[in-house]
Amino acid sequence: MSIRVTVWHEYQHELKEPAIAKVYPKGIHEAIAAHLRQNPQLEVTTATLDQPEHGLSEAVVKNTDMFIWWGHMAHDKVADAVVQRVYDRVLAGAGILVLHSGHFSKIFRKLMGTSCDLKWREYEHEREILWVARPGHPIVRDLDDHFILPHEEMYGEFFDIPEPECTFLISSFTGGEVFRSGCTWTRGAGRVVYFRPGHEAFPTYYDKNVLKVIENAVQWAAATPQPAKHTFGNRKWGWLDQK
Amino acid sequence: MSIRVTVWHEYQHELKEPAIAKVYPKGIHEAIAAHLRQNPQLEVTTATLDQPEHGLSEAVVKNTDMFIWWGHMAHDKVADAVVQRVYDRVLAGAGILVLHSGHFSKIFRKLMGTSCDLKWREYEHEREILWVARPGHPIVRDLDDHFILPHEEMYGEFFDIPEPECTFLISSFTGGEVFRSGCTWTRGAGRVVYFRPGHEAFPTYYDKNVLKVIENAVQWAAATPQPAKHTFGNRKWGWLDQK
Amino acid sequence: MSIRVTVWHEYQHELKEPAIAKVYPKGIHEAIAAHLRQNPQLEVTTATLDQPEHGLSEAVVKNTDMFIWWGHMAHDKVADAVVQRVYDRVLAGAGILVLHSGHFSKIFRKLMGTSCDLKWREYEHEREILWVARPGHPIVRDLDDHFILPHEEMYGEFFDIPEPECTFLISSFTGGEVFRSGCTWTRGAGRVVYFRPGHEAFPTYYDKNVLKVIENAVQWAAATPQPAKHTFGNRKWGWLDQK
Amino acid sequence: MSIRVTVWHEYQHELKEPAIAKVYPKGIHEAIAAHLRQNPQLEVTTATLDQPEHGLSEAVVKNTDMFIWWGHMAHDKVADAVVQRVYDRVLAGAGILVLHSGHFSKIFRKLMGTSCDLKWREYEHEREILWVARPGHPIVRDLDDHFILPHEEMYGEFFDIPEPECTFLISSFTGGEVFRSGCTWTRGAGRVVYFRPGHEAFPTYYDKNVLKVIENAVQWAAATPQPAKHTFGNRKWGWLDQK
Repeated sequence: MSIRVTVWHEYQHELKEPAIAKVYPKGIHEAIAAHLRQNPQLEVTTATLDQPEHGLSEAVVKNTDMFIWWGHMAHDKVADAVVQRVYDRVLAGAGILVLHSGHFSKIFRKLMGTSCDLKWREYEHEREILWVARPGHPIVRDLDDHFILPHEEMYGEFFDIPEPECTFLISSFTGGEVFRSGCTWTRGAGRVVYFRPGHEAFPTYYDKNVLKVIENAVQWAAATPQPAKHTFGNRKWGWLDQK
Repeated sequence: MSIRVTVWHEYQHELKEPAIAKVYPKGIHEAIAAHLRQNPQLEVTTATLDQPEHGLSEAVVKNTDMFIWWGHMAHDKVADAVVQRVYDRVLAGAGILVLHSGHFSKIFRKLMGTSCDLKWREYEHEREILWVARPGHPIVRDLDDHFILPHEEMYGEFFDIPEPECTFLISSFTGGEVFRSGCTWTRGAGRVVYFRPGHEAFPTYYDKNVLKVIENAVQWAAATPQPAKHTFGNRKWGWLDQK
Repeated sequence: MSIRVTVWHEYQHELKEPAIAKVYPKGIHEAIAAHLRQNPQLEVTTATLDQPEHGLSEAVVKNTDMFIWWGHMAHDKVADAVVQRVYDRVLAGAGILVLHSGHFSKIFRKLMGTSCDLKWREYEHEREILWVARPGHPIVRDLDDHFILPHEEMYGEFFDIPEPECTFLISSFTGGEVFRSGCTWTRGAGRVVYFRPGHEAFPTYYDKNVLKVIENAVQWAAATPQPAKHTFGNRKWGWLDQK
Repeated sequence: MSIRVTVWHEYQHELKEPAIAKVYPKGIHEAIAAHLRQNPQLEVTTATLDQPEHGLSEAVVKNTDMFIWWGHMAHDKVADAVVQRVYDRVLAGAGILVLHSGHFSKIFRKLMGTSCDLKWREYEHEREILWVARPGHPIVRDLDDHFILPHEEMYGEFFDIPEPECTFLISSFTGGEVFRSGCTWTRGAGRVVYFRPGHEAFPTYYDKNVLKVIENAVQWAAATPQPAKHTFGNRKWGWLDQK
């Protein structure tokens, strides 16, 4: 059974900054989607901020098993109603993978219940080393015990997130900072993954290890095989007899 | 050093329903505050929905180490700006104890990142038995290994919360339902506690075990001894040399 | 790719007590295995205490992706070397499902780091209601929001386990006790599941919901697709250059 | 009410290696104890491997609220019966702080349920930077958002521990490795803390930040104010009437 993936990207930097467009000519979303489309088990579509309803209509959201989310300069332009729609879908059992600067997106902060703030340092082209902190987890399948990105933006602790249920990657940077770069949480019947790398100025989304983690995360977080069965609300007395 | 406690209550049922006013003549907030005031380490004030800014002005929030929150019929009337103010204070290190129907309050849902929905059954005067699931935790100090409330509203699983960091009480009800009645989470530098009992129609907040848990929770969740030291934002290169 | 399952059972009660043999003529292990064998993705074998090395030779353990463990009266007769072998295999990435009185087994206590003690009451034929506390989790696939076992032994909290990473089922009993009946933990690269039901005197392992949880747990806990890649030990300076 | 602290140290390196004795003339245990004794709320004693019962007689263990544990070359010489005694005391509500190479001690591995293995590199005098990952936690009180140790042994991930309930410090090293250097878990009614720094060849236990974490950890982990009230074992029918 295939997994229906919607890669959402604000798609602003590429349209406004030639240097970024050079790195991702069709946008970050298409770079990610191009990789995922090679996996026959995934049905991949993309959606962007400038589309009607940001490309996340009720029909699209309802038919998505797995969201991928990249945003940065336009978090505030995402309509609250659309955020609520994605949020409700995740609680009902869909997965969501939030990338890099998406840490400050409305959807991630709403799911976390924290500020999701962090330290950062840009354009220093620092080396990031990502260490596997939970070998055997499906999300790190086919990775070595670490991998290196030669040029990345630094993100540093304290990262204001709830204690992760699983921290599968921890990074260090040239400057000596550390960061919980791969984390998972459960929200309702859905699974949330945060994965750090992906500054728009660097070709991070062409790195084979980064793409591998994204592909693994999609398969793991969307693995809920069917809608959750649960009821809420008022419950009649004598329920045992009513069965 | 004393703990500054603000007991917040929407205080609507007692003003509108004589049967409830009979149980809590001065309101649930004053019943709880009356108990806490016997503890010389606690500085206790109360605040209610109908007060200006719901009694939660910037000055009040800034000078609160521990919030207690009871709401039910008027969750939607709590201003978003006030919710944000309390939220920011919790992330900065204050504690918050959410009681009973407060599970659906804006502040609790914002801190949890989930719907906080549940099953329920009212006015059947069911017996609730609360079992200690983490003996030795400061929140269950002076409790036996269980206690009984003869008349309560039923709350049942699935309770849509993130996996608790600690589940210290689990309840069963006459109808056979179960509920995670005492749970804790960390959010930013602050601590969040949920404690289930407290239907407005029953004298639950005069029960010595219930009051004991509330008092323990205040002392545990507000135990952060000083503001958290942490920085966010852009970080200059060469920080090591700048020390 | 199939999952290699080894159902381990001490297989003592059935041989010594005619009343138990009547319920499980070929032993609990064969009742469970008979169900699992209907799933073509599972390669199922059984092993028992009285076999050489308890049926858990190095070859068997090495070729097991998922262990199921039932023990009760003979926990102390399980050789420490065999326990260590299973333990090492779990840390290396295999799954293990511990059933009912297996809570006191050497392997479960070794994996938990706690006493795993609990309250209990036997032969009262109590009704157990198991409530789903994490809808959407693969382990509760195809379950309703609760299910009922008409006759079971009571287990009650405090159950001395580390806080579960996921509590997927919580039970209540006729006597009003509650119990975390379905829990998961990660140990090394492996996954540990505890599932409560299964007193030897009752036909619990013929119940379709119980069998469904067991089958789901096998598929979830053994889902690690390949050996974990990680290294331990002394690490040479200049590792970056040595790649 | 004072906290009774027992600082346990294998005390072998200092007696056998003059270079180590030069750093810690009275042993690591006395360096730590000397600091803690300045806190009037702490009653501090020390115990070492070569003493009868390793200085951990039943009387000593029974009267300890908080253990500190340093071991390295002699883990295997610690008697299993003494380990069990300390273990039982922790489950009953005492705290334990395991330091540095104590990660491989019998007591820590028994409490964790994992191998506790890790990567390491010695005698390279690497710079360790420890970043606070949970500001506001009592264990990091009075720390800045990071601190630096100019010379330490490297420990690197994967560190084979169960997912911590709280990760309060994460380190990076000169070589680019990272490590979860401050972690907490609950076991029974007791609290377990692991704190990484402390190679015997370096004066780490004179560093004010390291000493501050140790002192904070003692006060936090031993904070259980009284023995846990809980019962195990067979429970009679009709318990409600027997009260």
